[in-house]
Amino acid sequence: MEPLKVALLGSGSVGTQVARLLTAHAEELALRVGAPLELIGIAVRRLEVDRGAGIDPSLFTTDAPELLKRADLVIELIGGIEPARTLILDALASGASVVTGNKALLAEHGPELYEAADRGGVELYYEAAVAGAIPLLRPIRESLAGDRVQRVLGIVNGTTNYVLDKMDTAGLGFAEAVAQAQALGYAEADPTADVEGYDAAAKAAILASLAFHTRVSADDVHREGITSVTAADVASAKAIGAVVKMLAICERVVAADGSEGVSVRVHPAMVPLSHPLASVREAFNAVFVEAEAAGELMFYGRGAGGLPTASAVLGDLVSAARNRVGGSRGPGESTYAQLPLRPMGEVITRYHISLEVADRPGVLATVSKVIAEHGVSIETVRQQQFPAAGTDAGGQDRASLVVVTHSATDAALEATVSALAGLDSVAAVVGVMRVEGEN
Amino acid sequence: MEPLKVALLGSGSVGTQVARLLTAHAEELALRVGAPLELIGIAVRRLEVDRGAGIDPSLFTTDAPELLKRADLVIELIGGIEPARTLILDALASGASVVTGNKALLAEHGPELYEAADRGGVELYYEAAVAGAIPLLRPIRESLAGDRVQRVLGIVNGTTNYVLDKMDTAGLGFAEAVAQAQALGYAEADPTADVEGYDAAAKAAILASLAFHTRVSADDVHREGITSVTAADVASAKAIGAVVKMLAICERVVAADGSEGVSVRVHPAMVPLSHPLASVREAFNAVFVEAEAAGELMFYGRGAGGLPTASAVLGDLVSAARNRVGGSRGPGESTYAQLPLRPMGEVITRYHISLEVADRPGVLATVSKVIAEHGVSIETVRQQQFPAAGTDAGGQDRASLVVVTHSATDAALEATVSALAGLDSVAAVVGVMRVEGEN
Repeated sequence: MEPLKVALLGSGSVGTQVARLLTAHAEELALRVGAPLELIGIAVRRLEVDRGAGIDPSLFTTDAPELLKRADLVIELIGGIEPARTLILDALASGASVVTGNKALLAEHGPELYEAADRGGVELYYEAAVAGAIPLLRPIRESLAGDRVQRVLGIVNGTTNYVLDKMDTAGLGFAEAVAQAQALGYAEADPTADVEGYDAAAKAAILASLAFHTRVSADDVHREGITSVTAADVASAKAIGAVVKMLAICERVVAADGSEGVSVRVHPAMVPLSHPLASVREAFNAVFVEAEAAGELMFYGRGAGGLPTASAVLGDLVSAARNRVGGSRGPGESTYAQLPLRPMGEVITRYHISLEVADRPGVLATVSKVIAEHGVSIETVRQQQFPAAGTDAGGQDRASLVVVTHSATDAALEATVSALAGLDSVAAVVGVMRVEGEN
Repeated sequence: MEPLKVALLGSGSVGTQVARLLTAHAEELALRVGAPLELIGIAVRRLEVDRGAGIDPSLFTTDAPELLKRADLVIELIGGIEPARTLILDALASGASVVTGNKALLAEHGPELYEAADRGGVELYYEAAVAGAIPLLRPIRESLAGDRVQRVLGIVNGTTNYVLDKMDTAGLGFAEAVAQAQALGYAEADPTADVEGYDAAAKAAILASLAFHTRVSADDVHREGITSVTAADVASAKAIGAVVKMLAICERVVAADGSEGVSVRVHPAMVPLSHPLASVREAFNAVFVEAEAAGELMFYGRGAGGLPTASAVLGDLVSAARNRVGGSRGPGESTYAQLPLRPMGEVITRYHISLEVADRPGVLATVSKVIAEHGVSIETVRQQQFPAAGTDAGGQDRASLVVVTHSATDAALEATVSALAGLDSVAAVVGVMRVEGEN
């Protein structure tokens, strides 16, 4: 059987491992595909950088467009929008199937890429774009193809999970935890994409698109980062038997008139310790998928790293190669449902509200009344005097009041917080965080 | 587009749900497949049984062979070897793709079924055969197709997990726990297939075949059931910070000469509480997959039940139907590796050995010497006098000696236990159980 020609774009930590494994496991991969996979070149920006890992130096080239012309299969691991987008579109147009791990590109230009794949009669795979090594997109797209996904709830960003885990277990502040993550290579020098939730939002958009057969872009995702999570929030979570996690949540929502919609959001939340996501430590990823028939499923593993991510890339490569050998094509984009995106205000959630209040009789009654007036009900309330010097500058006694609500719309809960902030007896709203994940 | 004709064989708890969902989600399934799926009949043994669930009664027939002739896609949910085997072979020969959840049949006659599918130019899917609703076979076969699986370690039998969980958490004896499982529908009236490990062995054979590209049948699997697990074993596990679980373990093993082989086994084992499998409760399933590049992955969910299993069946049905519409075929049997099966004696494991010994100086020295002579080293040893009347009939004092070994071959460990049993100072070998799952 003629070898299939593989072009690799990019040679970072994932690309290097992909190149290495393609060589080390060449024989086995050929037996699985039904034809040898021949790595014909690796496009890089600068030739002089030493790539190590025993890769044949003659494979490196700076001429990506020329390399693509000779390829049957293209692996894009450059990242970012351009030139990745143009190179992928060119590859698909020239009849090569493409495997990519580029979440930002998919979340922004997914439909354009799918259309190009369709026109070229080729395939587009991107398992590595979400949750690294964890087989997640294929199970959602194929294994659950006969089911109805109701909800995807997961930890899909290892950097923020590492940071929040260290704030929880080692008592670090946010800045210290980020510095430690950077020192260990879990966070970039500029951690914005991770800590502000852009990375998680792109992944959530991809997950929602597949789960709900609806086009969802990163801009459709309600996004809150973890930069404002404080040591006090982490301690408050502990006090209610929970832990702060950065979550990606994609939900099928049913409006009052029975019509269906989709809500997609990423934000930090308190997760009860009894929930399996609470025990996901370090930089691991885990995703819950709730489907009508299957019930709750969990997928757990390494969400990043050169070698684990290379596993996902090569799994896709074998699929694309097998289909090329067999003249088959896997499922393309599925957007028949096109459910409307619902705004954050309609999402049903719970709030943990931490207030600093005047320590005098009747404050709890006032606070409870305001909450009830917004149609929100209280699950638990905990009131305590400030430990040591519990007085403000004017000598007035202060107390801490922590309310955990029952479920309500995010809009109602937000309005509740605003109203509480305006009360005379409330000195400050110390912290507000959603509570997610039932036990 | 012409509808695809679907025949259903069997109408138990899974079949009923499959039939219901095919009707309830007909529109959505058609959009996913690219053609409507028309349920043309349900073959049952006796028409008079009321099937309920709002299924059109005219669909039922006792003439399975006639029904098959008219089908494009066949779902086999009869279970057992015959008539399931003959019906599936006939369906494949007549050009219908087959979806089945029949683990016993696959573990015994898998190669024959695959060959028939190949000859018919059609497909054979069986995600529902292992771990019910959990997408597991497709991820191993496709997502990890570019990786090398080293080990599969899992809880794949919900009945035995329920029984062992109740022995652990509710302090029940084995017989009581089985009775409770039967009352709740988690165990059959005759629980042999579950408690003796036949069900888990069939699943392990299927997992090993896919993971190692090697034909493995149920007979190749070393099988020990849970019938001899006692309340004392469960208490002993607790004492070392572990819990007893029924495990299926498929491992790639490397012999001294560097040649590779495969070991497949199912048996109860003590699993440290720090291992995620230890917290899999009730009738849930969870499977760890360890691959060279991906690292450790875990898949968790419901391993049985009509509705969850129907999700897996319908996922396969949609795949087979999509491929039929697109003229594609998914991957067939892959057995290129054909690694030799290695015997249980070569497996590397650890033992928990509980002995009743004479309570006199020097016994620990004697026991330690015998263990060392077998090339086995001791991780921990715990010696204690029997609580109340710690004497035997002759009035001699007795003590309990619990040894947890380091890793060694199963043969060496077994020989160690035999030698210990023969010692004068050892009154009885109270319990022996493997310890699996590092933390």
